[in-house]
Amino acid sequence: MASPALAQLIEDVVTANRVLAHYGVLDGFGHVSARHPERADRFLLSRSLAPELVTAADLMTFDLDANAVDGDARKPYLERFIHGEIYRVRADVHAIVHSHSPSVIPFAASSVRLRPVYHMSGFLSGGPSVFDIRKGFGCTDMLVRNREQGAALAAELGDQGVVLMRGHGFVAVAGSVPVAVYRAMYTEQNAAIQQKAIALGGAVTYLDLDEARLAEATNRGVSDRPWELWKRKVGSP
Amino acid sequence: MASPALAQLIEDVVTANRVLAHYGVLDGFGHVSARHPERADRFLLSRSLAPELVTAADLMTFDLDANAVDGDARKPYLERFIHGEIYRVRADVHAIVHSHSPSVIPFAASSVRLRPVYHMSGFLSGGPSVFDIRKGFGCTDMLVRNREQGAALAAELGDQGVVLMRGHGFVAVAGSVPVAVYRAMYTEQNAAIQQKAIALGGAVTYLDLDEARLAEATNRGVSDRPWELWKRKVGSP
Amino acid sequence: MASPALAQLIEDVVTANRVLAHYGVLDGFGHVSARHPERADRFLLSRSLAPELVTAADLMTFDLDANAVDGDARKPYLERFIHGEIYRVRADVHAIVHSHSPSVIPFAASSVRLRPVYHMSGFLSGGPSVFDIRKGFGCTDMLVRNREQGAALAAELGDQGVVLMRGHGFVAVAGSVPVAVYRAMYTEQNAAIQQKAIALGGAVTYLDLDEARLAEATNRGVSDRPWELWKRKVGSP
Amino acid sequence: MASPALAQLIEDVVTANRVLAHYGVLDGFGHVSARHPERADRFLLSRSLAPELVTAADLMTFDLDANAVDGDARKPYLERFIHGEIYRVRADVHAIVHSHSPSVIPFAASSVRLRPVYHMSGFLSGGPSVFDIRKGFGCTDMLVRNREQGAALAAELGDQGVVLMRGHGFVAVAGSVPVAVYRAMYTEQNAAIQQKAIALGGAVTYLDLDEARLAEATNRGVSDRPWELWKRKVGSP
Repeated sequence: MASPALAQLIEDVVTANRVLAHYGVLDGFGHVSARHPERADRFLLSRSLAPELVTAADLMTFDLDANAVDGDARKPYLERFIHGEIYRVRADVHAIVHSHSPSVIPFAASSVRLRPVYHMSGFLSGGPSVFDIRKGFGCTDMLVRNREQGAALAAELGDQGVVLMRGHGFVAVAGSVPVAVYRAMYTEQNAAIQQKAIALGGAVTYLDLDEARLAEATNRGVSDRPWELWKRKVGSP
Repeated sequence: MASPALAQLIEDVVTANRVLAHYGVLDGFGHVSARHPERADRFLLSRSLAPELVTAADLMTFDLDANAVDGDARKPYLERFIHGEIYRVRADVHAIVHSHSPSVIPFAASSVRLRPVYHMSGFLSGGPSVFDIRKGFGCTDMLVRNREQGAALAAELGDQGVVLMRGHGFVAVAGSVPVAVYRAMYTEQNAAIQQKAIALGGAVTYLDLDEARLAEATNRGVSDRPWELWKRKVGSP
Repeated sequence: MASPALAQLIEDVVTANRVLAHYGVLDGFGHVSARHPERADRFLLSRSLAPELVTAADLMTFDLDANAVDGDARKPYLERFIHGEIYRVRADVHAIVHSHSPSVIPFAASSVRLRPVYHMSGFLSGGPSVFDIRKGFGCTDMLVRNREQGAALAAELGDQGVVLMRGHGFVAVAGSVPVAVYRAMYTEQNAAIQQKAIALGGAVTYLDLDEARLAEATNRGVSDRPWELWKRKVGSP
Repeated sequence: MASPALAQLIEDVVTANRVLAHYGVLDGFGHVSARHPERADRFLLSRSLAPELVTAADLMTFDLDANAVDGDARKPYLERFIHGEIYRVRADVHAIVHSHSPSVIPFAASSVRLRPVYHMSGFLSGGPSVFDIRKGFGCTDMLVRNREQGAALAAELGDQGVVLMRGHGFVAVAGSVPVAVYRAMYTEQNAAIQQKAIALGGAVTYLDLDEARLAEATNRGVSDRPWELWKRKVGSP
């Protein structure tokens, strides 16, 4: 039987899937994982399924090689290696969102860098770098399909909170599910706002590095506030 | 009585109409057809009706000349010739969507080409060509109203998955209803994203031809995932 | 007691208010009127009320001077003169929509002309002219508050289907309520699409005058199709 | 027990929170306050909570130093000083909205000034100035966290109806809750519309100062109309 910590985490992962689908940060694709609370070398991730439809029963447990444990033979997401390889090298990370949200992709296809345009997105710091799978792996279907590609993505992520993926999407990581959801939500928001600020044609002032760092520390302290709202919007799992 | 294959196809065409209306790819206009599963020279298409209101009882059967069969005298769509002429020359096509969706029309009116900006729209390949009815038919009401105009559109489509129509809309074709819906949905999404990428003012990197081809092959393999979601969103027909 | 024609018209005006509010063409402001079916010198228009809340009981009857008849002392819209003065000079007009919809205002504030970018908006013809109240009336609160201002707006409208109002909104007119609603809806849609086409930065091809005329004739013939959908979306009044 | 005036004000503040959340002017953050009707040196503001979830029981009473009165020890918003310091210096202000709405932030990050592009936003007058917390306080987390910062913001506001906050959001003030909500709603609308007008690339004509002043006076007279609609949209508290 699941421990209280694991039961809570399962509920949070299901809620995260539904919240991000509700707000259009995930559509029929994308996924949310969380590191197992008792086994740092394992993580929870849905079987291959549209995020909005994910329930507790759909969650599978994987080791860091992204192999399902306990003989679970259900069809997993092709890109589960994103999660395994990041958990392997980022001990501080306990939750990961992978998304193709519509305001972020333009920055993942452009030479213009995503940068924090307001305090809500201080976690973007100096601006996420862009992982281009073509550099290490040549011509592919753009997916992160194996450990090597996952490790290259994790290396590009480094110690950032977010990394973009050229022609594909982005990954947001955090120490908890609510903060990972917060980061995915405000990566999308910030991208939409920065797009508009650029289109005005004047000079744009971004948060400087220290403002971003201080704002991020503050926002982590109030991340329960939107999380309570978002949970209410999608109902209990 | 309808065979199981035909009954399933009828349900899929109704669902497709409702899904595409739900997501704004169709409004009061546009239509979805499917080739008859037992008669390759016939196709199913609603009577003249807003897509969101289409039920199984509204579907009519047409021959490839776009004449209704079985003496069905209900009012058909004026542009049914789009469907007949494409089915005539594209044996691989079993479903067709015609849409005026709002992010695609700008590309149908502009000299800037729609191109795949992320892996979800690999089916756009090198970028759909634009059918301009004025070239072959002079000044018209812009509709594809007869076999000759339908055949010219089918010729412009060639072996592409999508063709744009100047000052009008686009057509997406596929080997099944779920994949045709997928292509219509992500043609709209890609157009919206490409628009934003261009507006950022930097250099935009599109999928190259091989990336697009590989991504398309992968996505066809997972097209059931969004289809299950979309069906759930609109309820059973 | 209302004749069947009048009863139907009342229902249509109420539906029109609710449809245009549902789709964001009207918000808390704007209005819809119709010429009385038995008295060409009278028109129906709600008392001062947000369009979404309008019911049959809220409709008032006005003469062409925009005075309420039958001693109806309820508070009318300040801008009822828009309607009276257009009905006075346009015998072909039987319904009028006044809106501040968000994609149209940019054209009402810009030197760039709104033009038909696809066949759905052939009624825009060569592009609506812009009424600037400042030219005839100097500095005002921008509202059309009296007969003289209404007559100047009607003169700018001329024989067009739509006229924009600088720093304010637009007016769409037609021979019936469903067609006036159609024109208001697709004026908004066309504006949004033209905006995006321009932002792509390439050459934009608009419908030429003959294409616009022919497309408009066709669309008037199928305006029942979206009207049935829109009625269904808002329920019966 | 609350006086009728206080009871009505409490209901209005709750409604305002829900309305602004419904229309996306507030998300999980932002807040609405009102000056106490019987104690000009006190104001009502929710405890730290997402606006959409605010009920009458969540409202706290603060003095102008932004200290909770009556020993209320619940967790307040960090930025309550925005409210206290504006009420201190603006006797005409009885309601305040603080928002991060998505169309306004671009102007809060850009050298391009927000200006009234149509009559609905005459209250923007010559264009709100932008408070940059960095000027007086150096590198911060961007929040208005104490009396000094609140006073600096109030000084930048001066006698305007709206002030922007660089890299953060904006504040709208008014003589009543409905008018403050109106101003917050149309600050967002105007920003979205001005953005599009600029992107058209032509010359943009804004309201001149006298037009803005006259339009504002008119709109204050009809602000009940949208307020009744907005209340209906969110249901009774």
